[in-house]
Amino acid sequence: MSTLNELTATQAASGLAAGDFSAEQLMRDCLGRVTEREDDVRAWAYIDPDHALQQARAADTHRANGGDLGPLHGLPVGIKDIIDTADMPTENGSPIYQGRQPSLDATCVAALRAAGAIIMGKTVTTELANINSSKTRNPHDLEYSPGGSSAGSGAGVADFHMPLALGTQTGGSVIRPASFNGVYGLKPTLGLIPRGGVLLQSHTLDTLGVYGRTIEDLALITDSLSIHDPRDPQSHAGNRASLRAAYRTKPAAPPRFAFLKTPAWEQADSGAQEAITDVARRLGASCQEADLPAPFDRVIDLHAAIFAGENAHYYGGHLDERPELLSEKLRARLQANKDTPARDYVEALTKRETIHDDFETLLERYDAVLCLPAAGPAPHGFETTGSAIFNGLWTYLGVPCISLPRLTVDGMPLGVQLVGKRGEEGKLLRTARWLDSFLASEAG
Amino acid sequence: MSTLNELTATQAASGLAAGDFSAEQLMRDCLGRVTEREDDVRAWAYIDPDHALQQARAADTHRANGGDLGPLHGLPVGIKDIIDTADMPTENGSPIYQGRQPSLDATCVAALRAAGAIIMGKTVTTELANINSSKTRNPHDLEYSPGGSSAGSGAGVADFHMPLALGTQTGGSVIRPASFNGVYGLKPTLGLIPRGGVLLQSHTLDTLGVYGRTIEDLALITDSLSIHDPRDPQSHAGNRASLRAAYRTKPAAPPRFAFLKTPAWEQADSGAQEAITDVARRLGASCQEADLPAPFDRVIDLHAAIFAGENAHYYGGHLDERPELLSEKLRARLQANKDTPARDYVEALTKRETIHDDFETLLERYDAVLCLPAAGPAPHGFETTGSAIFNGLWTYLGVPCISLPRLTVDGMPLGVQLVGKRGEEGKLLRTARWLDSFLASEAG
Repeated sequence: MSTLNELTATQAASGLAAGDFSAEQLMRDCLGRVTEREDDVRAWAYIDPDHALQQARAADTHRANGGDLGPLHGLPVGIKDIIDTADMPTENGSPIYQGRQPSLDATCVAALRAAGAIIMGKTVTTELANINSSKTRNPHDLEYSPGGSSAGSGAGVADFHMPLALGTQTGGSVIRPASFNGVYGLKPTLGLIPRGGVLLQSHTLDTLGVYGRTIEDLALITDSLSIHDPRDPQSHAGNRASLRAAYRTKPAAPPRFAFLKTPAWEQADSGAQEAITDVARRLGASCQEADLPAPFDRVIDLHAAIFAGENAHYYGGHLDERPELLSEKLRARLQANKDTPARDYVEALTKRETIHDDFETLLERYDAVLCLPAAGPAPHGFETTGSAIFNGLWTYLGVPCISLPRLTVDGMPLGVQLVGKRGEEGKLLRTARWLDSFLASEAG
Repeated sequence: MSTLNELTATQAASGLAAGDFSAEQLMRDCLGRVTEREDDVRAWAYIDPDHALQQARAADTHRANGGDLGPLHGLPVGIKDIIDTADMPTENGSPIYQGRQPSLDATCVAALRAAGAIIMGKTVTTELANINSSKTRNPHDLEYSPGGSSAGSGAGVADFHMPLALGTQTGGSVIRPASFNGVYGLKPTLGLIPRGGVLLQSHTLDTLGVYGRTIEDLALITDSLSIHDPRDPQSHAGNRASLRAAYRTKPAAPPRFAFLKTPAWEQADSGAQEAITDVARRLGASCQEADLPAPFDRVIDLHAAIFAGENAHYYGGHLDERPELLSEKLRARLQANKDTPARDYVEALTKRETIHDDFETLLERYDAVLCLPAAGPAPHGFETTGSAIFNGLWTYLGVPCISLPRLTVDGMPLGVQLVGKRGEEGKLLRTARWLDSFLASEAG
């Protein structure tokens, strides 16, 4: 049996370029895996195999005709279902948007298509990318949560449905599913990947991110997504250096890590605490425990104030006008957010730059922050998608985070999170590459 | 009796350059006027005649020694007492800051000194630049309000204490005193004059502005104040074109004006309504009544939500920790602001760019918006400093506004307000110059 679906994106791109197989064959293997597993994993909100195959055949024809080929030519990508697609519905995980068919692609989807990627389908999101659990299951054990909100993207890449996927993070929705499902995930700097055509729930926090099966895969897809978007005021100016080139550069010296327990530490499982402490220990002198001065101790509440204030703006209308279409859990949360005082919100926005200055100062002495990507491995059952307390602080600061699937706790995957400076994804990926090899060789 | 204090800043600069008089003589005349009038007008929070004269003599010595001279060399400037000065107290109009002596000049004060200006003293501000009336009186009639919050700066320039002054506007605190006291006032684009070292009450709204006795005077001082300030995240990048040069350029054709009644119209005095309508009428075909689409109809409330939310952040601590040092009026206002929901605040921030887009579209067809600078002439008595409903909307949009002292209603001054595009102060001043001449010749 063919297993092209198990290739990394980088391998698949090489195989396609060498003519070892066609985009159609690659897509058939991916779709075959979906057929085999979807009843259990439930990663997809929308997938039309005929449409996916037709796009793959068109890509093959284009290649056969000697057309210009983008860096993602023929690679299947899963798109979180809060990201608009002109050829597939986008329902935002909510009955409010049932049957909604956008007329335009989101800017990031258009960028993927322009790079030759094939939009394979829409992956499951939690309700409005918020807290309520989705139908998706963790492929490592179907009794466990895949995390949220980018549940289908994390689980689908982990379960070999597709090599690449897009997610979004407002609290911890890219990094946590990466950790729980045992895949690589990158939440870049706020504004690197533009948000035009993506459901907003907090413009200060909402960040597009990517899933892949290697760090290089993350670099490959992110390079095609880092474009300027006049639809997104937070969008960067574009013309950034290639992350893939940066990834391939060897660090001049072994990197140095600042191990941050963060104010969330006491809420982590002891197994997770031990696992990450062990990583820090194994790194020896190149890793030192560090901390950040006040008001960093309040960072979880400050993130929560931004989230509550902006979420009340973006989703308040749903609560006012169609509460019956919201889950009880989300309704209760929106009801609570409604009363967030502007004073707390403004304070949180103001403090952000103070904390960010301290963070930048710390990273003058270290190449990256090392910390837990989640409070523990995937929760058993579906009461919760897990806590974002090890993510929200970095989302708040708008700094890039990566999760490497290098730990196991109680038989389930746990990631190792690295955090870098705003705009320095290249250095973060290079540092992550070093750590990834180190942990692989240690484990081997 | 010598009356150098009645010169415009531009005239005074020429006279100083030509050696017609010294900076010391100019300052003596200004101080003489202060001695004569201060018991009535009460424009000054702090003034030390010896220190002012000593600075003037140092400027004369510098000139005599052939030193480099800045464009404001020897010109006395009054500084609103919420702007830090390293050599004078800065008490923010509140007992909370009694005796407070900053160790650094505000960035704008340092820029004035670098341009050769003489910091003459600190002008009266209302309590914390907020709503409570100050001790200052309107020099046109001491029974009338000089407006707020930049009361001393507006009244002092009007009463010939000094040719130039700095003020700040969060609602209407630059333009309203200009209108009430019959002087020229410019509130430039948010971020043109940096705010480092200035008391903040709303970072989205607080805007430094200037007073003078001609439009050219406003250009002269603003040119020395338009610098980048790393202490102010809203500060522009600097290196802007000279406003004075732009001011001197003749428009290619007679400018066109969009007369906006604004959503505040019904709250204006009938005398003020008639006076501005008459200006529009006299302009004939070059002025058309215009409007902006929704949500412009809500612009007063949207400004209020930003003000309330941010003011609760900046002043909330005073309410919590030292309410007895606040006036009853301000205490009540802060108490009300405390409950502003973040949702309203975020909505107001979001809507701002929508309205601004519509405003920019309107100004593709017109050179400036013409509107009232206040709901009427200065109020009789001191119950209130007047309403900011004709100003807050423009402060909210961050667009530049100028008031020209060309109208009289019930024997008291009233300005004519022109509003331009963000960053286009040069065009605004050129357009204002045309209108100012037009109204002067019509009146004559």
